[in-house]
Amino acid sequence: MTKLLKATPKPTLRRLPQYLDFLYTLKIQDKKIVTSKSIADVLGLDQTQVRKDIEQTGITGKPKTGFVVDELIFRIREHLNWNNLSDAFIVGVGSLGTAILGYERFKHYGINFVAAFDADENKIGKKVSGINVYPVSKLAQMAKQLEVHIGVITVPADAAQEVTYEMIKGGIRGIWNFVPKQLIVPENIVVENAQFYQSLAVLTRKLREKIHSENK
Amino acid sequence: MTKLLKATPKPTLRRLPQYLDFLYTLKIQDKKIVTSKSIADVLGLDQTQVRKDIEQTGITGKPKTGFVVDELIFRIREHLNWNNLSDAFIVGVGSLGTAILGYERFKHYGINFVAAFDADENKIGKKVSGINVYPVSKLAQMAKQLEVHIGVITVPADAAQEVTYEMIKGGIRGIWNFVPKQLIVPENIVVENAQFYQSLAVLTRKLREKIHSENK
Repeated sequence: MTKLLKATPKPTLRRLPQYLDFLYTLKIQDKKIVTSKSIADVLGLDQTQVRKDIEQTGITGKPKTGFVVDELIFRIREHLNWNNLSDAFIVGVGSLGTAILGYERFKHYGINFVAAFDADENKIGKKVSGINVYPVSKLAQMAKQLEVHIGVITVPADAAQEVTYEMIKGGIRGIWNFVPKQLIVPENIVVENAQFYQSLAVLTRKLREKIHSENK
Repeated sequence: MTKLLKATPKPTLRRLPQYLDFLYTLKIQDKKIVTSKSIADVLGLDQTQVRKDIEQTGITGKPKTGFVVDELIFRIREHLNWNNLSDAFIVGVGSLGTAILGYERFKHYGINFVAAFDADENKIGKKVSGINVYPVSKLAQMAKQLEVHIGVITVPADAAQEVTYEMIKGGIRGIWNFVPKQLIVPENIVVENAQFYQSLAVLTRKLREKIHSENK
């Protein structure tokens, strides 16, 4: 019988990687123990919030002595499913797709790219950062054969929905969408939008508000 | 006297670009009018939420007839400060920095890259996507001369804080941070983290929760 996994709130999931980064820093400094207070102080967060986030991973720290750094790293990575590398496909080897394939850090995040796909015949049959580029027509079949469950989409907006259908046909269950377009998927598929430009919207507006408030 | 700008909630700012994308689709289809209900339906959001978000931009639609598409596009872009191109610097011309410079769409988001910076002497003096690469030592002086207020950081994590100091010295006020590291800045500086890997954390965990709940 499989244990039921409790749903973790999204804001918590967004903070956990920040904690991981700080914990790696501590590891480099050879620190063995960390308290939720010190994490909260460094990252400018509320201490109770940090403690609640960490509790979600199922770890139990001692209030006074704190957490063992190595164990906390392991538990957060386990919670995010980053301890086991997940094979992934990427579709669209333009500038963004190429950058993603070249970004070594994804291995830290548990993602292992096994194949890339593109519609451009000049790219098909070549390698990008050591990964072979195949035609999109092969995607569904290859996803089934290789049992790949994660797909990254970095194609032009008007091709994104078609690529989504191909992924679902091949049994892909999680889609990381870098295209500024809402994808239509059945309920059993998880889509996460990379929020590239949403983040820029926050920056440009907040900057405008700040400069205006100073000029009053 | 400058009119005081009301602070817009971050979730609203993250949704406004989604509305924009949908509105551009309508424009292509030559549709002139849109209701908050149709936006909500297409994007899978609550209608009241959409109406409240749109109200933030100061536009007043008629409940029955809806909004003029062109006007709504203009008002959202105005609200996000995307109607006027803002000059920006980017520091770090690795794979991610190069991808960003090559991403034509940033012009739609009001960002105009005028110079790039890197520590690598092999890159300095060359052009990336038509943009000159300068040594980081020139950043502060050039930011002042060119009156640039937005900086994008795509350097390795251990160099990010130093680059931040150089930007602030040069009068840069808004920093778009792609480095998985918390930057320390004075209160008058706006930092927005691109949340690249945070978004991946949501995907990998939600996928795990979904697959587990089916295997029960």
